Amino acid sequence: MKLLYPNTLKLDASLISGFPTITLHQYDAKSPTIPQDLLDATILVTWSNSPANLAFAAQNLTQLRWIQSLAAGPNDVLSAGFDRSRVVVTSGSGLHDATVAEHTLALLLGAARRLHEMRDFQVQGKWPGHLGGPQPDREPGTFRTLRDARVLVWGFGNIAKKLTPSLVALGAKVTGVARSDGVRAGVQVFAEDRLPELLPQTDALVMILPGDETTKHALNKERLALLPKHAWVVNVGRGMSVDEDALYEALEGEKIGGAALDVFETEPLPEGNKLYKAKNLVLSPHAAGGRPQGAEALIVDNLRRFLAGQELRNKM
Amino acid sequence: MKLLYPNTLKLDASLISGFPTITLHQYDAKSPTIPQDLLDATILVTWSNSPANLAFAAQNLTQLRWIQSLAAGPNDVLSAGFDRSRVVVTSGSGLHDATVAEHTLALLLGAARRLHEMRDFQVQGKWPGHLGGPQPDREPGTFRTLRDARVLVWGFGNIAKKLTPSLVALGAKVTGVARSDGVRAGVQVFAEDRLPELLPQTDALVMILPGDETTKHALNKERLALLPKHAWVVNVGRGMSVDEDALYEALEGEKIGGAALDVFETEPLPEGNKLYKAKNLVLSPHAAGGRPQGAEALIVDNLRRFLAGQELRNKM
Repeated sequence: MKLLYPNTLKLDASLISGFPTITLHQYDAKSPTIPQDLLDATILVTWSNSPANLAFAAQNLTQLRWIQSLAAGPNDVLSAGFDRSRVVVTSGSGLHDATVAEHTLALLLGAARRLHEMRDFQVQGKWPGHLGGPQPDREPGTFRTLRDARVLVWGFGNIAKKLTPSLVALGAKVTGVARSDGVRAGVQVFAEDRLPELLPQTDALVMILPGDETTKHALNKERLALLPKHAWVVNVGRGMSVDEDALYEALEGEKIGGAALDVFETEPLPEGNKLYKAKNLVLSPHAAGGRPQGAEALIVDNLRRFLAGQELRNKM
Repeated sequence: MKLLYPNTLKLDASLISGFPTITLHQYDAKSPTIPQDLLDATILVTWSNSPANLAFAAQNLTQLRWIQSLAAGPNDVLSAGFDRSRVVVTSGSGLHDATVAEHTLALLLGAARRLHEMRDFQVQGKWPGHLGGPQPDREPGTFRTLRDARVLVWGFGNIAKKLTPSLVALGAKVTGVARSDGVRAGVQVFAEDRLPELLPQTDALVMILPGDETTKHALNKERLALLPKHAWVVNVGRGMSVDEDALYEALEGEKIGGAALDVFETEPLPEGNKLYKAKNLVLSPHAAGGRPQGAEALIVDNLRRFLAGQELRNKM
């Protein structure tokens, strides 16, 4: 059986080898075709393939039975036209937890410590003296440190679990929101119907929601209005979960403290979009993830399960 | 006995009260004088006093026996002309560890995740696409994440001890440099004579050196030349510990990856100084500390010691 792995990231094939019935073949994931001698592949690993490549694979890999995407949300694969009655798709959920958590922490600390504002002064050759020297400490109605800051993480999955220890170590008070309540990673997680009580008690709202019909504009005008005037919104989930028009209004009206967005309803954010210059908005270009960690181990685990006829991990 | 405490930060006097022989009096630390009825004070607490205020105190508080500064390095008090044969000075060392550590982490993550570069694009209304989407993972010769990054902390005191757990939690490999070697906070700390071996193995150099004659230009041209081409320098100690001309040359010549500086040889950094526009330099306006944490507890501990005739903490 042939397993095709992409050339779009450094995979160590030796860490996948050792299955006697499997042969490993690298392919060009950006090419509009796949070589003739690989068209009988059984397994396809994908990472940032071109749409043409996936469309070609969907039409021509007639023996395909399993696709292991390395993306957390493999929308590209799901919409490429594969015959899902025959082809199982598994995601790279988990491979991006650490990198996304790290970026989230960077955005949170950058917001609290006003790195963007410092940068704007520096570029103008000016010393942002108001941000340095002796400063008021933990004034009510400010978000200037994670110490004692009330951080509400909406979408409390594996990324949140990875992020939480770093926040707690810095002294933040972390609460979660998810579809179902419970205690996870030592954090009290509430169901979404508690948002009306939780949002007014929030200094920083971290959004890590997946992108589907149920999350569209989850953060809308009404919910934004419940946040304190100083609260920041950090979105590293999916752009569609924030109503960008409502967010823009809240920022320009100084109804919230600011927003650091790594994801947008349309990416790249179109030139001329009003969000570029919105007050207290920090833009990050979908940079939180993008670097799968431990892909080989996931492939091996699923390969073993596949050969043993067991349920695969991260099945879509 | 009178204890004078400043109006330049919110101190909760009730947390210092309870010593029967001590009366507590707030004073204006920015005023060029101190009221007549407080001139017989025995103890003075200082925080961002004006130079005139300190000079006045040095001349007129004739009964003074102890000054508790809340600054980590109370250079203002030490140079104000107090009679040191009579007046003991103690510093606020320890009160700033958590805030400085948090800011250091913000600067490190900002550098790794290129928040400054993203900001420059955003301000121009441009999408920094090269920093987002699928990215190469942990290429040799890059500093793009703290995961597996080799972080060398030069000046391994209490701030470093506070910072280390956060770095380790993000996957960094932390090593220390200090006057004497040993293992501190689970980190191997080497003596400074090992720098020639350590610097070439460094992805991010964090400097937390105190400011005195022995640390002037500790990071000089020769040592900068030992750092890898991609290495970042983060200085949250004292500006004098970095030779700014040598650093500027290293940055402009792309001999190092970048520098995030919270401290400078002259502060504020004078308008027109070449560092404002140096390549890959991130400027922070001495913003790491500036917010003493737990000042009341330090004052109480030292007050008890003072009354008991015991050695004071943080004696200069």
